[in-house]
Amino acid sequence: MNNRPLILITNDDGVKAGGIKALIEAVRPYGDLFVVAPDSSKSGMSHAMTVKVPLHLTQVFKEEGLTIYKSNGTPADCIKIALGELLDRKPDYVLSGINHGTNSSVSAFYSGTVGGAREGAFNSIPSIGFSLCDYSLDADFSEAVRICRQIFEFALKNGMKPNDYYNVNIPKGDFVKGIKICRHAKGRWVEDFEARKDPYDRTYYWLTGHFENAEPEATDTDEWALKNGYASLSPCTVDATCYEKLLELRNYDF
Amino acid sequence: MNNRPLILITNDDGVKAGGIKALIEAVRPYGDLFVVAPDSSKSGMSHAMTVKVPLHLTQVFKEEGLTIYKSNGTPADCIKIALGELLDRKPDYVLSGINHGTNSSVSAFYSGTVGGAREGAFNSIPSIGFSLCDYSLDADFSEAVRICRQIFEFALKNGMKPNDYYNVNIPKGDFVKGIKICRHAKGRWVEDFEARKDPYDRTYYWLTGHFENAEPEATDTDEWALKNGYASLSPCTVDATCYEKLLELRNYDF
Repeated sequence: MNNRPLILITNDDGVKAGGIKALIEAVRPYGDLFVVAPDSSKSGMSHAMTVKVPLHLTQVFKEEGLTIYKSNGTPADCIKIALGELLDRKPDYVLSGINHGTNSSVSAFYSGTVGGAREGAFNSIPSIGFSLCDYSLDADFSEAVRICRQIFEFALKNGMKPNDYYNVNIPKGDFVKGIKICRHAKGRWVEDFEARKDPYDRTYYWLTGHFENAEPEATDTDEWALKNGYASLSPCTVDATCYEKLLELRNYDF
Repeated sequence: MNNRPLILITNDDGVKAGGIKALIEAVRPYGDLFVVAPDSSKSGMSHAMTVKVPLHLTQVFKEEGLTIYKSNGTPADCIKIALGELLDRKPDYVLSGINHGTNSSVSAFYSGTVGGAREGAFNSIPSIGFSLCDYSLDADFSEAVRICRQIFEFALKNGMKPNDYYNVNIPKGDFVKGIKICRHAKGRWVEDFEARKDPYDRTYYWLTGHFENAEPEATDTDEWALKNGYASLSPCTVDATCYEKLLELRNYDF
């Protein structure tokens, strides 16, 4: 038992990804780290949880201040099982990432990285998901490490409320100009399915697509920040309700 | 080509589930139905999408006004591939469900049913996810069919905006008192992992849990409505941003 913050970490690219190593490097100076991460890539798994098969846990590393487990679960599962089975005290923070690839705009809903952070917030633990806008397996995380530290120091200094969670996206490149507080841009992924034939002449489809920003002129969005060389920090909601529509619908009588 | 509304349907319990059959029965009088549903249960899959393996599609039924495909994808995948590959015009509505089990409160984020509806809304199609608060495979959907019709008639009569989507939950039982417009209750699932030993003495964990309503006294929530015998209709957001926190964070300078 000590007074250092306990930081629970997960990701969606798996325990061996460069991004989670970068996140561990980034925040190790600030606390004791407890990592539970998927044993393989769980990219695009959103806030999925595993109910059809049981979860397995394997400790893969342990030294003073850093414990690492892997699991067959999703990022949200990893947070759940860490809180429910492994930890004997509540973590001070949940961090997720650093994702290999962007999670801005509506991707916050598809993202396993953000799902892991949201699960932290559901459990009243301030949480942050970090993503680097570079999908490559050998992405360079050195500038992202600097930004993660700056944001985590901000969180430590100014505090976060129990249900707060942030979706942080970091542009690719050698130099990030700064950090912008942003809303998520409106937009969507336009799907381009690539149809192929298997050796038995059956058609199968690879899901690909490109992002379409519905408001490219807006300057207060994560998309604008990333396009202009800034990291974006977007506070997220744990409440799925659309309150504007709620007020409108209350005028109707069933 | 005709003037009947085109209604795209998915679910997360799979194409053979009683709930999707009930939804088809409920809305068949109102339009032409095009169903793309998972070939097996995708319960708890949230807004996950499939990128590691290709998608397959098989037509399993076709007659005037009703076409049914199954796919190995998630509910969100099913909507994506229907829009991207199968349909030659944009559907007027996306409907998802009827789920075997509740999707109220924070479950809106875990739910594959709601994920399917959200994917519709991302594509500017008014969408509704329906869930019955009964997990059993042979649940009785007769009262749920009546409520689905009432809500879908409401949507047809009063219109929905392109990005609108509703999360509808229907209590178990023979008689639903009515429909309440509700916000999602604050709450969380408290995990109780059940640890077991496999025949090789290795531990594995089944994810179970119970829901904890953080505001049991509030009367404007979906949880209150369901507990008191009403169906809940909760409008949902396509924007992950927490605007209250956004205003607060803008006071800080990075």
